[in-house]
Amino acid sequence: MTHGSGMKINADKFILSALQEDIYTEDITTNSIFEENTPASAELISKGNGILAGLWVFERVFELLDDTFRIETKFKDGDIIKKNDLIAVIYGDMRALLSGERTALNYLQRMSGIATLTNSMVKELNNPKIKLLDTRKTTPNMRLFEKYAVKVGGGHNHRYGLSDGILIKDNHISGAGSIKKAVEKVRENTSFVRKIEVETENLEMVKEALSAGADIIMLDNMDLETMKKAVQIIDKKALIECSGNVTKERLKELSDIGVDLISTGAITHSAPSFDFSLKNLKSI
Amino acid sequence: MTHGSGMKINADKFILSALQEDIYTEDITTNSIFEENTPASAELISKGNGILAGLWVFERVFELLDDTFRIETKFKDGDIIKKNDLIAVIYGDMRALLSGERTALNYLQRMSGIATLTNSMVKELNNPKIKLLDTRKTTPNMRLFEKYAVKVGGGHNHRYGLSDGILIKDNHISGAGSIKKAVEKVRENTSFVRKIEVETENLEMVKEALSAGADIIMLDNMDLETMKKAVQIIDKKALIECSGNVTKERLKELSDIGVDLISTGAITHSAPSFDFSLKNLKSI
Amino acid sequence: MTHGSGMKINADKFILSALQEDIYTEDITTNSIFEENTPASAELISKGNGILAGLWVFERVFELLDDTFRIETKFKDGDIIKKNDLIAVIYGDMRALLSGERTALNYLQRMSGIATLTNSMVKELNNPKIKLLDTRKTTPNMRLFEKYAVKVGGGHNHRYGLSDGILIKDNHISGAGSIKKAVEKVRENTSFVRKIEVETENLEMVKEALSAGADIIMLDNMDLETMKKAVQIIDKKALIECSGNVTKERLKELSDIGVDLISTGAITHSAPSFDFSLKNLKSI
Amino acid sequence: MTHGSGMKINADKFILSALQEDIYTEDITTNSIFEENTPASAELISKGNGILAGLWVFERVFELLDDTFRIETKFKDGDIIKKNDLIAVIYGDMRALLSGERTALNYLQRMSGIATLTNSMVKELNNPKIKLLDTRKTTPNMRLFEKYAVKVGGGHNHRYGLSDGILIKDNHISGAGSIKKAVEKVRENTSFVRKIEVETENLEMVKEALSAGADIIMLDNMDLETMKKAVQIIDKKALIECSGNVTKERLKELSDIGVDLISTGAITHSAPSFDFSLKNLKSI
Amino acid sequence: MTHGSGMKINADKFILSALQEDIYTEDITTNSIFEENTPASAELISKGNGILAGLWVFERVFELLDDTFRIETKFKDGDIIKKNDLIAVIYGDMRALLSGERTALNYLQRMSGIATLTNSMVKELNNPKIKLLDTRKTTPNMRLFEKYAVKVGGGHNHRYGLSDGILIKDNHISGAGSIKKAVEKVRENTSFVRKIEVETENLEMVKEALSAGADIIMLDNMDLETMKKAVQIIDKKALIECSGNVTKERLKELSDIGVDLISTGAITHSAPSFDFSLKNLKSI
Amino acid sequence: MTHGSGMKINADKFILSALQEDIYTEDITTNSIFEENTPASAELISKGNGILAGLWVFERVFELLDDTFRIETKFKDGDIIKKNDLIAVIYGDMRALLSGERTALNYLQRMSGIATLTNSMVKELNNPKIKLLDTRKTTPNMRLFEKYAVKVGGGHNHRYGLSDGILIKDNHISGAGSIKKAVEKVRENTSFVRKIEVETENLEMVKEALSAGADIIMLDNMDLETMKKAVQIIDKKALIECSGNVTKERLKELSDIGVDLISTGAITHSAPSFDFSLKNLKSI
Repeated sequence: MTHGSGMKINADKFILSALQEDIYTEDITTNSIFEENTPASAELISKGNGILAGLWVFERVFELLDDTFRIETKFKDGDIIKKNDLIAVIYGDMRALLSGERTALNYLQRMSGIATLTNSMVKELNNPKIKLLDTRKTTPNMRLFEKYAVKVGGGHNHRYGLSDGILIKDNHISGAGSIKKAVEKVRENTSFVRKIEVETENLEMVKEALSAGADIIMLDNMDLETMKKAVQIIDKKALIECSGNVTKERLKELSDIGVDLISTGAITHSAPSFDFSLKNLKSI
Repeated sequence: MTHGSGMKINADKFILSALQEDIYTEDITTNSIFEENTPASAELISKGNGILAGLWVFERVFELLDDTFRIETKFKDGDIIKKNDLIAVIYGDMRALLSGERTALNYLQRMSGIATLTNSMVKELNNPKIKLLDTRKTTPNMRLFEKYAVKVGGGHNHRYGLSDGILIKDNHISGAGSIKKAVEKVRENTSFVRKIEVETENLEMVKEALSAGADIIMLDNMDLETMKKAVQIIDKKALIECSGNVTKERLKELSDIGVDLISTGAITHSAPSFDFSLKNLKSI
Repeated sequence: MTHGSGMKINADKFILSALQEDIYTEDITTNSIFEENTPASAELISKGNGILAGLWVFERVFELLDDTFRIETKFKDGDIIKKNDLIAVIYGDMRALLSGERTALNYLQRMSGIATLTNSMVKELNNPKIKLLDTRKTTPNMRLFEKYAVKVGGGHNHRYGLSDGILIKDNHISGAGSIKKAVEKVRENTSFVRKIEVETENLEMVKEALSAGADIIMLDNMDLETMKKAVQIIDKKALIECSGNVTKERLKELSDIGVDLISTGAITHSAPSFDFSLKNLKSI
Repeated sequence: MTHGSGMKINADKFILSALQEDIYTEDITTNSIFEENTPASAELISKGNGILAGLWVFERVFELLDDTFRIETKFKDGDIIKKNDLIAVIYGDMRALLSGERTALNYLQRMSGIATLTNSMVKELNNPKIKLLDTRKTTPNMRLFEKYAVKVGGGHNHRYGLSDGILIKDNHISGAGSIKKAVEKVRENTSFVRKIEVETENLEMVKEALSAGADIIMLDNMDLETMKKAVQIIDKKALIECSGNVTKERLKELSDIGVDLISTGAITHSAPSFDFSLKNLKSI
Repeated sequence: MTHGSGMKINADKFILSALQEDIYTEDITTNSIFEENTPASAELISKGNGILAGLWVFERVFELLDDTFRIETKFKDGDIIKKNDLIAVIYGDMRALLSGERTALNYLQRMSGIATLTNSMVKELNNPKIKLLDTRKTTPNMRLFEKYAVKVGGGHNHRYGLSDGILIKDNHISGAGSIKKAVEKVRENTSFVRKIEVETENLEMVKEALSAGADIIMLDNMDLETMKKAVQIIDKKALIECSGNVTKERLKELSDIGVDLISTGAITHSAPSFDFSLKNLKSI
Repeated sequence: MTHGSGMKINADKFILSALQEDIYTEDITTNSIFEENTPASAELISKGNGILAGLWVFERVFELLDDTFRIETKFKDGDIIKKNDLIAVIYGDMRALLSGERTALNYLQRMSGIATLTNSMVKELNNPKIKLLDTRKTTPNMRLFEKYAVKVGGGHNHRYGLSDGILIKDNHISGAGSIKKAVEKVRENTSFVRKIEVETENLEMVKEALSAGADIIMLDNMDLETMKKAVQIIDKKALIECSGNVTKERLKELSDIGVDLISTGAITHSAPSFDFSLKNLKSI
């Protein structure tokens, strides 16, 4: 699990903006009291059980504040962590550690919360042939971090946004006149590197999408029986995504009806925060 | 409840960034199918019960995409809304309505979720003399919107960030040598327009903070009995904030021990999303 | 052919930057002479034969300078235009017309040049079953405009960039150990909405790519005979892209060997500029 | 030939934007396969004959992606390079080399293409007393790099943009009433550090410009005989720029009629790309 | 006196913008003459008597231009400096020293000018119980630096801007209906961490403000006698700020009438520049 | 006197940044009290005698806050204004008028202050053949506005920055080896549209600069007698700029020694603020 150089290029603008959101001019409390550079260390402690995600963002927050910052850790994103685990020891100027703490934790807590919820749903699903997917229901300006956390938790990403994946919905269909025409227009006007997905609400639409050559067919808000019939109709000629009302409780029953993909907005928009604390800050 | 001209100045940069996050080049599905300007309308429907927050952000998303956009609504931020309520009818280019839908809903759902949770906690607390406060545990790059939603829900804002409020914590105290010295340094180096808050963990610290002239004393993670004693000691000579482990369940017992302020990170970092849907999109 | 609301969101930042590149403080010649607002008009004339592309960018340049700007035209992007055709009449403040002229023409000339070259290659290819593709060999900070122009000219777009399409090259293969392992890693780590393309240099690699389940196989710099054999081996189980050394002259012979896609960097990196002029500027 | 510290300040914003254009989130192919930091090297090879330009931009692209990047080279901008020359060996993280390759080459190929075309025209002109000039017909957001490449190729720069040089054209003249009045207004309203250039279309205008005190007189689209007469009239009292329809073929005949400057848009807007390749990428 | 990590985060965007204001493409004079990296040193000399402020900004300007830059100094912000004092020796690339000189000095001269004027007024006031305050009458985009300089000079900061401090003026009062209602609305809608200040013009308003519970009462443009009465009325139940027409001459008489705070716009908007020069630049 | 479309393009980024500097989230006082849109008007009154400059910036501040803003005025930049003159009546949302007031006045006061000081020095000089010049000693991020104000006041602009004008100083000369070599290098490496200025400190240098072909010769910090000799030596073969220690008092004696240009940093870096007030704000 890694972020690579590209993600750093794109993540920095968000992280810097988050720091500026918290620190408009300076950390007035800290700078009033610590008037000189003071080498210090602190410990990052887990306050729950789950999956660690976002350690590189946590680190990057402090790096942007302090050239001397460094971190020592035996954990990496994706690791199982337990309550009271010492996740990392960080070193840097006392002021930078105090000023960056909240922003760094805000990222880490949200990302680890998402990875942990995702992971628990993947375990509940308990079927390696089915991919648990996120959606575009992410927090504004957090998509890069939230979609990454889903992967860290064992889930998979749906399209990133409106520009890199095709999803033909009912309004597109009525705009084009039919599923067939919508698929044709999209095939003509978008890059061939993209698969074409069609959202369907009933078996009639499933048949049309199939004959139009859709690569992926979404079964949206269908009941179990209808979905089973759709799976038979599609007969492996397209990937099948199940969407709508996917709760942890329903995952079991969705697990063996033959779909390839199950998507849920909840893993990003409603994951509870994972608690961490920064302790034992001291000058060294 | 209003946002005023200033908030618009500062909100736009976040909203535009959120749109660019979703739409890197263009909405390839929509633009492939709708090749011309198509006047359209759609309905915003509530899918739950709670408090509406963020309607102006919802609106602003579409305005940034489409000069012809307009909205008709009888609701305003802070109103109680019920499942299936028709919140608003929106008008604009079909493509803009389709391309902006997700970003607009992502803001509205998170903001209304926070307002709704806040409101339910304020009701649970049921004591108009006590202010329920947010913290800095907000989602990165969402603070402007999340703190606004807390107010819409009937809560109050703590400081916005590190630059506009003073909170002296244990590390500041040990850095300065004592609470007294920390308060002195802060009073000397920061603007007189700010109140000085000191975080305390025991009654000894409460006494020191009081004699140092703190304007606000935070009782952090104290048990009920200790807090009651602290209230007696302080004796209205400073505002009292209760912090740590504030759950909906504990609010009742915190309600009549005499504190002025109760702060909770959960109302921003763990509020569940409030569901809305955009329905009946049609050309007009 | 349309750009939609999303493209405008993303195009503006480039167009504004281009204007600031030319106008650091103000147009010193124009502003010295025209001290007052002077309503004016001018004519956009084609100086060559080809395909028009970029009229909305041309228009947007002036809109960013002048709220009163408007354009009258009977042409649209994709139309065939001839030398001396009156493409449009534009109206606005004399100073804005003078100050924006060069930036507006620089976009229009490059975009129409690309559309025209693309169109001539599509005609030379003369096979509607084969898509002529662009590459990532575009001018820095011009990709949005250049890829759009390729489509206007009748070509098709390959992936937009490194984040929205998968192309496994030799270094990826050696890094992973084999084509099979590379495809597996990519399938595991990237979104299922993306097709997987593998670049091959010989028939052995073609076979491996096929058995690994590649969706698209690129035949890179192969001679005609090898490509024909590759087409037989692949046997329609994957899309076939022909790449490398694609000149206008070779298109004929590539036209009937059975490939689905032909990509060429030249249509973006070496298209000659299409000449336009802005004439008959006068106050009105 | 050098860029100095200032150019780096201004170039970075364009280079970073170009990287973000190609890498919206991350290089999904590369990051899926190379999950760890992998020290690597690669060779930059020339695939043509000409003039090298833009090596510092090529280098800067990778530096922005990778702190460990370094380059070894015996060449510098302005050097003559031949097909198959090993221009440089580069070292860095495998992922950064793969992710930055295309952007780095896109700059280098365009800049070297411009330097090479410029150089061939300067040689064709074969008159050290005459400066071959570029124009403002550059690619949007590439002017800094393209004007630099012209200088590397032995050409000279005309004004950078509308704010740092004065060029009075026909519309300015009619706006002011006469050449004399236009020159007066410009002299009154702009900085004395700028020379004043007037564009003329016939000998009458040449005389007026001369008597108005123009520092530079542009002969626009005149035939050879008219230009010779203009040179006699001006008689070294102003610099003379020849403009319009300057092709490689016409340079010979323009060489000895006595003009000081010859400007051509083609060296920037229609220079063919110079081919390079990055080869032998390997972990080290 | 220190700026801490937060201020650097926020200062950089202004400093970079100031450099780009001066250096649009490159320093053409310097780069024409110095074609290679040339290690050099220079001396920063004081040309006046006063208080040093802004040395870290001076330093940061060069750091943004040159990675090798370093400074040696025995002075720090707040120190008294005299004419001809050698303030610092700086080391770096000759080109960076030449290109950054003006921007670095422009900051240092303005900041030291403000610190010096502030300091002389504080001395004139000669009453450690009274704080001399700045206002929001700062130069646009210089507030971070100018308010810092006021503190360096021994003054104190009023609110930073409209978002972090409350000041109820006459228009707010008439908008709300009365001082009482205005204070109530503000107390209800803004964070409890802020003190509430009311601007008063006569003793009636002073009484109303006091009974409304204002934390700070501003006596605006009152004569000495009225102010003395106001001090008696307020009787230490609120902080008292004297504002309007505060000249160096009047400070003496304001010194012993019992106000806590005296604010003056002149220390930021009309401080004369403090002269420095960069001398003895030489290659080393 | 006009700013034209280009200046608006470049001014907006500074004005928006200045607004964000003052209004980080919102104007908390105003927005607490005025919860609804309230049409209002206010009067801009002059509080001194001098020259008006910056009215379009004043206006632009409010436009960026409020789409409904409009201004009525009989004055324009460059007009003489007197104490108590009603300069303009402005109309817009009450909140926008209150929130924008300070930023708008901060620009107007500084710009009018500079125009007024410039004008008084031009009158003192009282010689229409000599241009009074500004320098690069402007306030960071204010150069666009300050150089404009100098022109409004009757002064003239020296180069805008390091990229659009050539000034060879002593360090450049010693770097190149001699004035002659420095001029040659600059002539070879920079655009022919720029005049070349050489800074001289004695008559020997004046002679060298003249024989090297300098277009402008700066006499830096010379006494009156030396300057008179320099004027004789130069004998109208180059423009002559007098620089250093130019005070209002010395202007008279500099007026008739034959120089063409007199430059002074004081008109930008030390101009006192011109006082305005916004009065009679009321809802309409």
